[in-house]
Amino acid sequence: MKTNTINRRNFIQKTSLITSSVGMLSFFNETADAKPIAAEDNIHIIGPKEGFSTHIGTMLSMMTWMRQTMLRSVTGLTKEQLDYLHDEKSNTIGAMLMHLAATETFYRIHTIENVPWGDWSADAKSKWDVPMRLGEDARKSIKGNNLDYYISALNETREKTTAEFRKKDDQWLMQIDPRFFGGKPTNNYCKWFHVCEHESNHNGQIKWIKGRLPGAKEAKE
Amino acid sequence: MKTNTINRRNFIQKTSLITSSVGMLSFFNETADAKPIAAEDNIHIIGPKEGFSTHIGTMLSMMTWMRQTMLRSVTGLTKEQLDYLHDEKSNTIGAMLMHLAATETFYRIHTIENVPWGDWSADAKSKWDVPMRLGEDARKSIKGNNLDYYISALNETREKTTAEFRKKDDQWLMQIDPRFFGGKPTNNYCKWFHVCEHESNHNGQIKWIKGRLPGAKEAKE
Repeated sequence: MKTNTINRRNFIQKTSLITSSVGMLSFFNETADAKPIAAEDNIHIIGPKEGFSTHIGTMLSMMTWMRQTMLRSVTGLTKEQLDYLHDEKSNTIGAMLMHLAATETFYRIHTIENVPWGDWSADAKSKWDVPMRLGEDARKSIKGNNLDYYISALNETREKTTAEFRKKDDQWLMQIDPRFFGGKPTNNYCKWFHVCEHESNHNGQIKWIKGRLPGAKEAKE
Repeated sequence: MKTNTINRRNFIQKTSLITSSVGMLSFFNETADAKPIAAEDNIHIIGPKEGFSTHIGTMLSMMTWMRQTMLRSVTGLTKEQLDYLHDEKSNTIGAMLMHLAATETFYRIHTIENVPWGDWSADAKSKWDVPMRLGEDARKSIKGNNLDYYISALNETREKTTAEFRKKDDQWLMQIDPRFFGGKPTNNYCKWFHVCEHESNHNGQIKWIKGRLPGAKEAKE
């Protein structure tokens, strides 16, 4: 059995300096020309993060990476592009962005406030139920917003999530709900991993639709 | 600073029994009616796994969950459905399945065999380059296979990955390549998280196309 465990402290110690040499670099290979990794360069370093428990920090670093990757797909889109409906079954890119904020919000209420799935307050329901469900109601009501509107909703949601994650520990992350996905035991880590990968699921669809916007030259999937 | 660290050993100890009561359950709440979680019910428990270092086991549990989720979308698809081309820019579902096996294979060669990205052997290139690139060549050559063909390719690839993961430790997972995504420092964890979320990216597209197969009644996105 492997027993190597990396926690935030020794991870930070070991990765605080990396060399500027080309090619794969050993984790421990801190040579004389080592340079610190600038904060803005840390996005592609998945692992424990200062201010969070080991596994929560690691998971949050994935969520942050995923968010940046997804937002890259929508950068520069106009209101008309965000409202573009590819066919009568499609969701707009704007509605999908709102759906991601809704997903994260409901999982926060569910896992942090311990609200059983679906038992949302009238307030939460009136704001998030339509983007959560997508489909016809979302097609009718989520439109006419520019990109900043959606990014603000995503940022505001993520700030709330992050603030709660700071207060939680790995025991919470590993807590098991005896019946959730497929009626099977599901831990909080799995629920939040789903929130994370769900951005990728919709990013795939966003890129698909983006490649077919009126005037689009090339589909990049 | 939170210092709670869960490694495989104490994770297994703490989660080996859960109660059968309804609702959110404390990680430590092992009551008299506790029942062990059956192996097949472990899919939604993300965390360290027996036989792997803490972070590798956790990541592999996400990859396993993601694979099961993605495969649920393609269950029962016929050869004709796997070959269905929605428009001239689209990839077939079959080609996307092969693309996921290609992605995992190239990242294994890159991160485990330390082969610089793109410097593939003639053998690897001839087998995986077309599905990796998708597009026109993939549309021409990846067709006429039934679902088992693609699932075998995915399983064979995952078995190789898993065998290598067993030999690696968290230091390897945290190793930093000074220039990779966006020319920025990128660790192996980030590269493999990308392999994992990439299945979700294509799962989003697979579900989109599946909802538009000839005769499909409803799009489920």
